[in-house]
Amino acid sequence: MRVDIGNALGATATPGVSRTALEQLDERVASAHERIDHGRREAEHGYAALSLPRRVNVDEVLAATAGFDPEAVLVVGIGGSALGATTLAAALPAPDDAPPVYALDNVDPAHVSSLLDSLPLSETVVNVVSKSGTTAETLANFLVVRTRMQRAGVDWTEQTLVTTGDAGPLRAMADRHDLPTLRVPNGVPGRFSVLSAVGTASAALRGADVTRLVAGARDAADDLSGSLFETPAYAYGAVAFALGRRGATSNAMMPYVEALEPFAEWFAQLWAESLGKDGLGQTPLRALGATDQHSQLQLYRAGPRDKLVTFVRQTKRAAAAPVPDDLPDGLSYLAGEGLGDLLDAEFRATEASLAAAGRPNVRVEIDRLDARSVGKLLYGMETACVLVGELEGIETFTQPAVEWGKVAARGLLGAAGDPEQDAADAVAEKERLVVD
Amino acid sequence: MRVDIGNALGATATPGVSRTALEQLDERVASAHERIDHGRREAEHGYAALSLPRRVNVDEVLAATAGFDPEAVLVVGIGGSALGATTLAAALPAPDDAPPVYALDNVDPAHVSSLLDSLPLSETVVNVVSKSGTTAETLANFLVVRTRMQRAGVDWTEQTLVTTGDAGPLRAMADRHDLPTLRVPNGVPGRFSVLSAVGTASAALRGADVTRLVAGARDAADDLSGSLFETPAYAYGAVAFALGRRGATSNAMMPYVEALEPFAEWFAQLWAESLGKDGLGQTPLRALGATDQHSQLQLYRAGPRDKLVTFVRQTKRAAAAPVPDDLPDGLSYLAGEGLGDLLDAEFRATEASLAAAGRPNVRVEIDRLDARSVGKLLYGMETACVLVGELEGIETFTQPAVEWGKVAARGLLGAAGDPEQDAADAVAEKERLVVD
Repeated sequence: MRVDIGNALGATATPGVSRTALEQLDERVASAHERIDHGRREAEHGYAALSLPRRVNVDEVLAATAGFDPEAVLVVGIGGSALGATTLAAALPAPDDAPPVYALDNVDPAHVSSLLDSLPLSETVVNVVSKSGTTAETLANFLVVRTRMQRAGVDWTEQTLVTTGDAGPLRAMADRHDLPTLRVPNGVPGRFSVLSAVGTASAALRGADVTRLVAGARDAADDLSGSLFETPAYAYGAVAFALGRRGATSNAMMPYVEALEPFAEWFAQLWAESLGKDGLGQTPLRALGATDQHSQLQLYRAGPRDKLVTFVRQTKRAAAAPVPDDLPDGLSYLAGEGLGDLLDAEFRATEASLAAAGRPNVRVEIDRLDARSVGKLLYGMETACVLVGELEGIETFTQPAVEWGKVAARGLLGAAGDPEQDAADAVAEKERLVVD
Repeated sequence: MRVDIGNALGATATPGVSRTALEQLDERVASAHERIDHGRREAEHGYAALSLPRRVNVDEVLAATAGFDPEAVLVVGIGGSALGATTLAAALPAPDDAPPVYALDNVDPAHVSSLLDSLPLSETVVNVVSKSGTTAETLANFLVVRTRMQRAGVDWTEQTLVTTGDAGPLRAMADRHDLPTLRVPNGVPGRFSVLSAVGTASAALRGADVTRLVAGARDAADDLSGSLFETPAYAYGAVAFALGRRGATSNAMMPYVEALEPFAEWFAQLWAESLGKDGLGQTPLRALGATDQHSQLQLYRAGPRDKLVTFVRQTKRAAAAPVPDDLPDGLSYLAGEGLGDLLDAEFRATEASLAAAGRPNVRVEIDRLDARSVGKLLYGMETACVLVGELEGIETFTQPAVEWGKVAARGLLGAAGDPEQDAADAVAEKERLVVD
């Protein structure tokens, strides 16, 4: 991972950050790095995520998944228990005959039914993922899947892999039915768990190179230094922080790599749930180049000066899909170009177009889209996020604001308990102004 | 479409809008309505989009698509030439054996190759969509698809439906090969074209009820009055405008209907490209309930007070997918509930959770997800967007900021011409600060 922050400097962009300000900020980065490095060495809550490349036992994941040879993989989880898996399913190379990975990460009955109708249930491995084992959406979905399998005459106990914490209903079920089980590591919030069994089990089921993924992350972990001018992840985090303070309240993650579209979703959770507290937090926008040039670029270039645009560019692609030569008038400039050349020209033009309008942007580059570079990218973004949390002085690893709604939903569904009842009552007090 | 703006009032939310301020704003809505109504009656540029429900010739679309019986539909287009089609493909009911609709809306060579590898080319109808017939991504992709078909021994002229303007390379090609062709209506920007042949051709190919879709939009068009208190679309647009002025610089579109996930993408283009100009424009965020409760909700509830959250709720669902009764301890509250009940409880809890934290939100309701209500919803959001443009005093129907990049990309690919050369030269002048 290489980071070019030239287009975020004050000489180019408004908002922008001066080199002098970056040098001053680098002292705070050094202190933050000491805090982060201590935290990961001691495996403190949250910081433990950044020690995963050294701690995670890839062999356990490979052993738990080796006995399966599915036609499809169904991850049943939500939020951090699904986004890592879908990110890796799209980003990591896999054998030509690798099974597709689907995620059941919502409880819309029409969608659940049509997805399950489309799957070869007798050849599908289900990976149910919930640290607590009590996540309502995940447990409800898993029970629906299990019943479907039973009705189809499929022995669900032969096709279920459980990823959960040390205790809870899923752990109890796994013990009762002697299911293969992987452990969600302690001290690692879901949004930081992609390098653990939470993210890697489904990748291993499709034959992706999880060992190299973790090795790439380990390289990035070993390379962390105490300066933003030496560590790409810190350069990115520091610039995002500095621009945020200078008015870039949004951060558009815009890979020019289709296989990284789910990565943008993963990044959006990482950024929003870690940094969105105490009235602070940059709002992540999910974009995709070149597609969103025809959708969001007008706003990025001519709307409010409240955005940082983060590009991810792949510099080396396997040659593929040349544009044929029999071109209509006015399109002859495309002759002989590959689609990859077109995509890269669009990237460079868009980056320059934003710079010409003084809109700050950062270029994150990877060479090839392989397991090692994906590991570096994911670890780098996690580190950048933790750095921003340190610089802001917030609690990066909690998510207190989602609790109220969970309690209220339980109350609306009739769960017993005072907080549930109070929250359910509060829901009924809604102010209305209906236009029909 | 029913709109409840109660949770956006000043009594509940900060930022919020008072009833008095809404009453004052209603006078400006009345003037804007006169402008809009005149524009659509005269089919002026842009405003013509709002006359589509009366002008569009559904029979032409049905006639052009009636001869096909494909196993798959491939829309080749980008931006407004693809988002309407993907929105309708997901949102409109269709027969059980309806062909899936895929969109080739990016030029990543790895993605294009793997998508084309997966399609039954001899049974795939290609709908290539570009008003000018010169959109680089679309033409390049179409030429790649055509060559693939030729190599597979498929007569592409028998399986191609062209949607384009009155002139240009695609029109010329359609004439030369006598291809079935539908016309992109004049005066209708791509992002407002979902109700025309641009959006409906692929929907018709999969047997969706396009006639009812347009009829629903026509009902909404006929019901426009000059007051936000009588017209749901104006209520929504006026509140979005008022909150934007009061600090809600972002607008999160969060349907609690999985089939409306592409609708949120469509909305994001509509909002961003229409309103993002002159330093103005609310930034659209694409979200999905309940999934994003586990990703974005922390930020929406506890981050900066700069967001409006727009929910879309479906009130009536076909009963489906009950949660089985054999529940682990602590989850018995789920017993006997359907997944739809769980999803709706999550919606109500999340809405109340934001309200309890004083975060403005609007509820948009539809009863069933059928062609008629989808037509009303799409027309309603288009109308809301045009209203915001009127209230802001901007040019809603242009997208000037994307032009520079298009010229530069052509220049980088070697197109001749002074602006191309100048822009390509400018790209080379990039300021660099690389951390590796």
